[in-house]
Amino acid sequence: MVRTVRLAVIPGDGIGPEVVAEATKVLEAVTTGSDVSFEQTPFSLGAARYLETGDVLTDADLDAIKAHDAILLGAVGGVPGDPRLAGANIERGLLLKLRFELDHYVNLRPTVLHPNVVSPLANPGEVDFVVVREGTEGPYVGNGGAIRQGTPHEVANEVSVNTAYGVERVVRFAFVQAAARRNKLTLVHKTNVLVFAGSLWKRTVDAVASEFPDVAVDYLHVDAATIFLVTDPARFDVIVTDNLFGDILTDLAGAISGGIGLAASGNINPDGRYPSMFEPVHGSAPDIAGKGLADPTAAILSVALLLRHLGEADAATRVERAVAADLAARGAERRSTAEIGDAVVARLTED
Amino acid sequence: MVRTVRLAVIPGDGIGPEVVAEATKVLEAVTTGSDVSFEQTPFSLGAARYLETGDVLTDADLDAIKAHDAILLGAVGGVPGDPRLAGANIERGLLLKLRFELDHYVNLRPTVLHPNVVSPLANPGEVDFVVVREGTEGPYVGNGGAIRQGTPHEVANEVSVNTAYGVERVVRFAFVQAAARRNKLTLVHKTNVLVFAGSLWKRTVDAVASEFPDVAVDYLHVDAATIFLVTDPARFDVIVTDNLFGDILTDLAGAISGGIGLAASGNINPDGRYPSMFEPVHGSAPDIAGKGLADPTAAILSVALLLRHLGEADAATRVERAVAADLAARGAERRSTAEIGDAVVARLTED
Ligand SMILES: CC(C)[C@H](C(=O)O)[C@@H](O)C(=O)O
Ligand SMILES: CC(C)[C@H](C(=O)O)[C@@H](O)C(=O)O
Repeated sequence: MVRTVRLAVIPGDGIGPEVVAEATKVLEAVTTGSDVSFEQTPFSLGAARYLETGDVLTDADLDAIKAHDAILLGAVGGVPGDPRLAGANIERGLLLKLRFELDHYVNLRPTVLHPNVVSPLANPGEVDFVVVREGTEGPYVGNGGAIRQGTPHEVANEVSVNTAYGVERVVRFAFVQAAARRNKLTLVHKTNVLVFAGSLWKRTVDAVASEFPDVAVDYLHVDAATIFLVTDPARFDVIVTDNLFGDILTDLAGAISGGIGLAASGNINPDGRYPSMFEPVHGSAPDIAGKGLADPTAAILSVALLLRHLGEADAATRVERAVAADLAARGAERRSTAEIGDAVVARLTED
Repeated sequence: MVRTVRLAVIPGDGIGPEVVAEATKVLEAVTTGSDVSFEQTPFSLGAARYLETGDVLTDADLDAIKAHDAILLGAVGGVPGDPRLAGANIERGLLLKLRFELDHYVNLRPTVLHPNVVSPLANPGEVDFVVVREGTEGPYVGNGGAIRQGTPHEVANEVSVNTAYGVERVVRFAFVQAAARRNKLTLVHKTNVLVFAGSLWKRTVDAVASEFPDVAVDYLHVDAATIFLVTDPARFDVIVTDNLFGDILTDLAGAISGGIGLAASGNINPDGRYPSMFEPVHGSAPDIAGKGLADPTAAILSVALLLRHLGEADAATRVERAVAADLAARGAERRSTAEIGDAVVARLTED
C-alpha cells in the first residue's frame, strides 16, 4: 500500500524556486520505491504573482492550500524598495497570513553546527539545539495602528497579544521536545520589562514544568540569550520563546551554525487540523537569484522536517545523514545550487 | 575658576558598588588639579534599599536626583527569584523610571573591540560602532495589561508606543553622531511585521536623511542585524533603533567586543533639562558580588562618556586611552576589581 501525500508547493520569489527544485529532487529520490508518494501541486504565490495579478493570497488560494496534507515553501518577497510592491506587504499578506490562518502555532527551528561547517565563532563547541518559536501571537498579530500619520503628531502603536491558550500549547510542545532530547528547556523572554506578557509566559512554563519533572528549566532575558548564543551555545537544548524573540534568536542561531543557508524550519499545526508548512529560514535573496548561487541545503533540511512531521522518520534521517555527509565533504569548493542538490541525492544511496 | 559638577551616584546592588568605587576613583584621578571638580551625592537605591524600607524610588529621591548635573549608576537588581522581591520590579520601578522621568531619550552604547581583547568571533575585524537606542518609547512604555489573569482565558497585552516627536529627536541625534564619525547610519527595525511603528521609523529616517546628504543610510531587519553583528560587524558605524531592539543588539554587541564587562552606556537627555545617567550595560550579577571578581572597565568607560557629555573631552579621552592601554596589557592574568581600577589610574599619568 502506497500512501499518497498531497503536497502544496510554493516556490515563491527570488532564489525560492531554485532551492525548492533541489528540495523536491531530494524528496523524490528519498521516497522513490518507498510506501509514501508525494503528489505535488504548485502554487504561484509571491511578489511575481502580485505584480502579474494584484493578488497576494486569495480566499480561493487559501482553500486550495488547506486541501493539502503539507506545504513546502521556498521564499517569498520581491526586490526591497521596488516601487511596484509599495502597496503590498508580501510578508504579512502571504507568509504570515498562512502561518496565522493555518494555525501554525509552533515554529520549529533546529540549529545544528555540522562537522566541518565553518562558524563565525572561534570556539563554538557542540551546537545542537532547537528553538520552539510561538507562531500565532505576540507582536506578530498585526494589531497595530497609527493616528495623525505623516504629521509631527503621529502616534504609531503595535500590540503584542498573548493568551493562556496560545502560550500553554506551544510551551507544552516545547517540553515534549525537551523530554525527547537532553531534558533541558530555556524560556527566553523579557519578563522584567514586558511584565504582563512575561508573567504569563513564566507562569505557564512553571505550571507545565510540574508535568515534566525530568526536564530542567531555566530562564534568560532575550538580551542575555544573544550573549550565550555567541559565548556558550552548547548550553542550549530547547529554547521556547515568543514570536518576535524567536525570529531574532533563530537568525542569530543560523548565523553561528554556518549561515541561514543551512537553517531549516517547520511551521507546524500539531493538532493536524491544517497542513503544516516547511521552509528555509532564509529569504528570497533577489540579489543572487537566477545565478545558481543559492545554497539549497536549508530547503533540503526542511524536507527532512516535513518527512519527520509526516511520520516518515527513516526517510527524514536519511536526508539528514546525506546532508551531513555532503557538508562534511564540502570544504571550500563552490558549487552551484543544482550541484549541491545532486550531491545530496547521490549521498542518499550511500547508506 | 574650578567648575563644580553635582554628581548623583547610585552604586546600587550586587557588583554595582564595587565597580562604582573604581569608576569614581578614576574620575577623581583624572580631574584632580583640573578645572572641573565633582561633588558626589550618594543615593541608596536598589534591591537593598527596597528590602530595608519598602521604597523603590520615592518622589523625594527623584527630586533630589533632578537637582544634580549628572548621574553615575552601578547596577540595580537583587538575587533573581528572591521571594522578598516578588512585589517589586526594581528594573521598571527604578532604572526604567529614571530613564523615563529624566527623559533619557538617547541610550548611547558605543561598541569597540580593543586591541588584544578576545572576541568570541573567529575573525571579528574592525569593530567600532555606536548604537543609538531610543530610551523613552517602544515596548518599554509599560502600557501592558492583562485580563482574566491566572485563568485559562488570560489575555496579556503589551503595547509599543512610538511617536513622531520621540522618533524624530533620537534619529536626528543619530545622524549627528554619524556625521561626526564615518558617515554611515543603519536603521534597524522590523518594518515588514511591525508595519505601523516600522513605517514611522522608516519615514522619519528618510526625512532627516535629506538634511545629512553626506551620511549613507541603510536599513536592516532586526533579525538580519544579529547576523551581521557576528559575520561582519565592521559594516556598522551608527545604528539607530528602538528601545527593545536596542536592548537586544547592545548585549550582543557587548558580547562580540569582549563581553559586557567592557560595555559602557549613557542615558542621555540631550536637551539638558534633566541630568543624564551613565552606567555599565551589565547588571548587578549577585552571584559574583563582594568577591572582587567584577570587571570595573564598563563602569570606568561610562565615566568617560559622562566626561565627554559634560564637555570634558580631554579628560574623557585620557580615560579611554588609559583603559585601552590597560586592556592591551592585560593578557590572561586575572586581576581583582580594585587592581583593574588602580591599573587604569596608573595609566592616566602615562600620557
Ligand atoms: C519574512 C518575515 C515576516 C519572517 C518573520 O519575521 O517571521 C522571517 O524573518 C522568518 O523568520 O521566517
Ligand atoms: C535591566 C533592564 C531593564 C535593562 C533594559 O532592558 O534596558 C538592561 O537590560 C539594559 O540594557 O540596560
